[in-house]
Amino acid sequence: MSPLPKNQESAAALLSKTVDSVPALDPRWLERAQTRLNQLTKPLGSLGRLEEIARRLVAIREEERPHCADKAIFTLAADHGVTEEGVSAYPKTVTQQMVLNFLSGGAAINVLCRHCGIDVVVVDIGVDGTFEDLDGLVRMKVAHGTRNMALGPAMREEEMYAALAAGISLASAAAEEGRTLIGTGEMGIGNTTAASAITAVLTGRPVAEVTGRGAGIDDAGLERKARVVEKALAANRPDPSRPLDVLRKVGGLEIAGLAGLILGASARRIPIVVDGFISTSAAAIACAIQPRVRDFLFAAHRSSEPGHDSLLEFIGHKPILDLEMRLGEGTGAALAMTLIEAAAKVLSEMATFSSASVSEAPA
Amino acid sequence: MSPLPKNQESAAALLSKTVDSVPALDPRWLERAQTRLNQLTKPLGSLGRLEEIARRLVAIREEERPHCADKAIFTLAADHGVTEEGVSAYPKTVTQQMVLNFLSGGAAINVLCRHCGIDVVVVDIGVDGTFEDLDGLVRMKVAHGTRNMALGPAMREEEMYAALAAGISLASAAAEEGRTLIGTGEMGIGNTTAASAITAVLTGRPVAEVTGRGAGIDDAGLERKARVVEKALAANRPDPSRPLDVLRKVGGLEIAGLAGLILGASARRIPIVVDGFISTSAAAIACAIQPRVRDFLFAAHRSSEPGHDSLLEFIGHKPILDLEMRLGEGTGAALAMTLIEAAAKVLSEMATFSSASVSEAPA
Repeated sequence: MSPLPKNQESAAALLSKTVDSVPALDPRWLERAQTRLNQLTKPLGSLGRLEEIARRLVAIREEERPHCADKAIFTLAADHGVTEEGVSAYPKTVTQQMVLNFLSGGAAINVLCRHCGIDVVVVDIGVDGTFEDLDGLVRMKVAHGTRNMALGPAMREEEMYAALAAGISLASAAAEEGRTLIGTGEMGIGNTTAASAITAVLTGRPVAEVTGRGAGIDDAGLERKARVVEKALAANRPDPSRPLDVLRKVGGLEIAGLAGLILGASARRIPIVVDGFISTSAAAIACAIQPRVRDFLFAAHRSSEPGHDSLLEFIGHKPILDLEMRLGEGTGAALAMTLIEAAAKVLSEMATFSSASVSEAPA
Repeated sequence: MSPLPKNQESAAALLSKTVDSVPALDPRWLERAQTRLNQLTKPLGSLGRLEEIARRLVAIREEERPHCADKAIFTLAADHGVTEEGVSAYPKTVTQQMVLNFLSGGAAINVLCRHCGIDVVVVDIGVDGTFEDLDGLVRMKVAHGTRNMALGPAMREEEMYAALAAGISLASAAAEEGRTLIGTGEMGIGNTTAASAITAVLTGRPVAEVTGRGAGIDDAGLERKARVVEKALAANRPDPSRPLDVLRKVGGLEIAGLAGLILGASARRIPIVVDGFISTSAAAIACAIQPRVRDFLFAAHRSSEPGHDSLLEFIGHKPILDLEMRLGEGTGAALAMTLIEAAAKVLSEMATFSSASVSEAPA
C-alpha cells in the first residue's frame, strides 16, 4: 500500500490530485459495447439491465471484454460519538465485536462474499477500541470514533482528511493488486444517524423523511433519533454547497474513508458497487465533490431505510436489487457484484449469430 | 430416468398421482427457520427477502440447514404452429438452431449457468426438426411442434399428457440425482403468443394488455399478434376453470412439459425457480391444477413482457429480480438461483450472537 500522507496539507493535496484525475467516460466505448451486444445470440436488448451494466463496464475499463474476476469489498469500521444520544438499538461495543466476527468469517458479509467469490477487506478506520495483532485486519485508525455531532463537528479537519486519504490509499492498493470490481461496506453503530444527517443536508429533504430505524430502534427511539439529527444540523449548520463541510460536521470516519475509496477507485478506472444507505451517503459526498464519479458507480440495492431513495436520486442511480435488506457491511454489494460479473461474462462468453449459425431477425 | 408412460391413460394416471402427492407445507418449519435466523449476528429481519427465501427453503425441504448446491435448469424446447400467422420476429428454424447453441455452450443461459454453478439440461420436447446423435440432448420429442392454435387446438389430448408426463419424469430423475434447487427455462419461437393466450384465459385480462413484443416484433406485428391470440381464443373457447383444457388448446409442448416438471418437483419437495413469462404461464397452469404447488415456487424475475405481472399475481408471487430482462431460456432463473443459494448459506454459515460473543439488542 502506498504510504499515507503525513499531515493534513499532504492529505488535502492527495485528495485534490485524485479528484482532478477522475476521467470522463468516452461514449465511443459505450457504442462499441452495444455493437458487440447486438451480435450475440439473443433478441436485441433482451438482457435489459445486464446490457446497460456491460456497456458501462466496457467504458469504465476501456476494454472490449472487461472481466470482474478480481473482486473485493472494503468494509470500513468506525464508531460514532452520537451514540451518546441513544440513537441505536445496539450498544457501541458491537462495532468492535462485529469486526472480530468479520475476521473470523461468521458475519453475513463473509457468507455472501464466499458465495460470490469476493474477498472481504476489513479496515479499522475509527473503531473506539484497541485490537490485538489480528490476521487480516487493515489498520488505518484515524481516531477512536467521531465526536458527538449533536454538540459540534463530528471530526476535526485533519481527521477528515486523514480518513479520505486512507480511502484513496486503499483504492491505489486495489488498483496495484489488479482488482477489477470493488464494493463498499461499513460497520459502525450509530452510522445511519450520520447518513440521515448527510442526506437531509445534500438533498434538502425533511429530517423526519430521511431518518429510519437503522438496526431496529422502536418508535420512541426513532423520534429521538430524528430530534438528534435536527440538533446536529442546528449545532453545525453544514453548508450543502461544500461537501467536505457536510462530511466533517455530520459524517463519520468510515463515511469519509468510503468517499475517499470511491474517488480513488474512479480515478483508477475501477468500477465501484455502492452498498446501502450509509455507503450511498459516502457516494453522494464523492459525487458532490466530483460529478464525474457518478459514471463509475453501480447502485447495488435499494435499502429499506427511508432516506435511501432520495440519496439514490441524488447520485442518479437506479439500484440493481430490491430485496428489502438493511444490514450494511457490504451485503447488498456482494449480491449485486455477482450479477455485474455475470454481465461482463455475457460479453466475453456468448456466441454471435454468425459464430453459432443462428438466423437473425430480419432488419 | 423412470420410463415414460406408454399411453394416454397411464400418462393421465401419473399426472393424477403426482398432483395428489404434492404436500402441504408445515408452518412449524417456517417458525423453526425464523428462530434460527433471529439468533444470527445481524439486526432482526435485516436480510429482508433473503430471510423469507431461507424460511421457505427450510419448510420445503424439511431440513434445518437446506443446501442448494445441486442446481439445474431445465430448458425445454418446442415449436409452435401459430408461427404460420407471422407472430414472431424470428423464423421458426431458430428454435432448432438455439438448441444447438445451448449444446455447444454459447447461449446466454450457458454463460449465466456456468457463472452460477448450475447445470443446464436441454430437452427436445417438441422441436420441429430432427437432431443427429448429440451429446447432452435429452430426447423427449412428443411431436414436431404444436398445431396452429388460431385454427384449432394446439395439441391432441395424448400429446398434452405425454408432454406433462415427460416433465414429471424429468422431476423424478432430478430427485433421484439429488437436485436440491431447479429452475425452469424454455426455447420456442412463437411461445410468447401461447403464454399470452394462457394469461388472457386464466386471469381474465384483455388480450391487448397481456400481449407483448416477445423477441422484438414491430408495432404492426404486435397488433397482428394480439389479433391472432383473439382468433385462437374464439376458435378454441378454452374453459378457464379447466386448466388442462386451456393448456391443450392454446399452450405448447414445452409449456406442458414445464407444468409437469413443476408438479413433479413439488411432489418431490424440490424448490422450483420459475423464470419469466412463458415459464410463469406453465406455473400458472400447475397452480390452477394443484394450488399447493404455489408454496414450492420462487418467482425469479419480473419480465418486461406486459402480461407477466398478471401471471405473477395469479400465482401469488413477488419476483426476486427486476432487471428488465425478456430473453427466456431460464436466464432470469439462473441469476435468482444464486441469490436463493446465498439465502440457504446464511442459515448454515453465519455465526450466532452467542457463538461470536456479539451483544444483542436489549429486548
